[in-house]
Amino acid sequence: MKIAVLGTGMVGNSIGNKLVSLGHEVKMGSRTANNEKAVAWTREAGAKASQGTFADAAAFGELVFVCTSGAGTLEALNAAGAGNLAGKVVVDISNPLDFSKGMPPSLFTRSDESLGEQVQKAFPDAKVVKTLNTVNCELMVNPGKLAGGEHDMFIAGNDAAAKGKVVELLKGWFGWKNVHDLGDISAARGTEMYLPLWLRLWGSLKTADFNLKVVRG
Amino acid sequence: MKIAVLGTGMVGNSIGNKLVSLGHEVKMGSRTANNEKAVAWTREAGAKASQGTFADAAAFGELVFVCTSGAGTLEALNAAGAGNLAGKVVVDISNPLDFSKGMPPSLFTRSDESLGEQVQKAFPDAKVVKTLNTVNCELMVNPGKLAGGEHDMFIAGNDAAAKGKVVELLKGWFGWKNVHDLGDISAARGTEMYLPLWLRLWGSLKTADFNLKVVRG
Repeated sequence: MKIAVLGTGMVGNSIGNKLVSLGHEVKMGSRTANNEKAVAWTREAGAKASQGTFADAAAFGELVFVCTSGAGTLEALNAAGAGNLAGKVVVDISNPLDFSKGMPPSLFTRSDESLGEQVQKAFPDAKVVKTLNTVNCELMVNPGKLAGGEHDMFIAGNDAAAKGKVVELLKGWFGWKNVHDLGDISAARGTEMYLPLWLRLWGSLKTADFNLKVVRG
Repeated sequence: MKIAVLGTGMVGNSIGNKLVSLGHEVKMGSRTANNEKAVAWTREAGAKASQGTFADAAAFGELVFVCTSGAGTLEALNAAGAGNLAGKVVVDISNPLDFSKGMPPSLFTRSDESLGEQVQKAFPDAKVVKTLNTVNCELMVNPGKLAGGEHDMFIAGNDAAAKGKVVELLKGWFGWKNVHDLGDISAARGTEMYLPLWLRLWGSLKTADFNLKVVRG
């Protein structure tokens, strides 16, 4: 499959590498073509990896992964262009972290609106699915690395078929065993607002190699 | 021990009953003395249970549990009186839920300040410890009911000795096996902002009988 990865950071690299290793053609998008980090990634990732602007990547991909920092998400998607996103499954991994007030970061969203909802509202023809934003980038694509994969992922989105495809992808491609469907895209509030707890756990456990398991009766 | 329970709702009842069953003397506080629900609770809970105003309860307790709804927490503690809280361990279980915008509730706090911090700031001589706010009231005092207690509780507070006492209490009295110390009271942001995820899980699992286990590498 032809897949767009928007963002050249650790998340973009991690997702991009995994998708290429699975045999997909991946175009990494950034603000400008020939971004230094994107070019370096294509050199390492091999022949199936390419790079370009956000618009180049979004036009190329049948499926789009949003791997930008949260503060850059809407700008990146605006640059990608609504027309290049229309009708496509857009997997939003970004978190609305606000680093302006020091560490640990707070969130730039209010508690009655998530970044996932903002994305869906700005691009009504895209099928936005929020997932993977609750774990470190290594765990995103290799959950089996931790406790044999016995921990949980969450998913939220308005389009049931799009969510179904992303669940298949999370399980079949990335190896997730348990994916909780939390409902429509407004449930992204729940997973994004978990970040402050993730950050405190990161601080106290002194490792990002952890995740939640929902224990139920 | 003489213990104050502020609040007459399900959380206050649950904590009060458990403490009485352990042999403690518990005074339930509410806005006015002889509150109907508080009186009903004392009748059921027996001779070790009493009731009065928030101030009566706080003056009585060597240890104070804040079991109010989040919107009523500061008002209840103001009524309790700073002098009655000074030097005491104040266990804040309340969550800053805002029901004014419909269901599920949002939070009335910003992401850079928690209700726990507001309480500590308003009552600097109290030793505020935030805990138990991440589970249903039944699980608070009976974690063994779910998966043999193999799931986790969080704690936050500025005073190490106070946190140590509360960890002892959580383990020895209530039966918690794993308690994560997340740091100072600002870490209450993490556990309070988990509530939106809790609410979505409650909606999708259709039971409140669940909790998190932190799986680590």
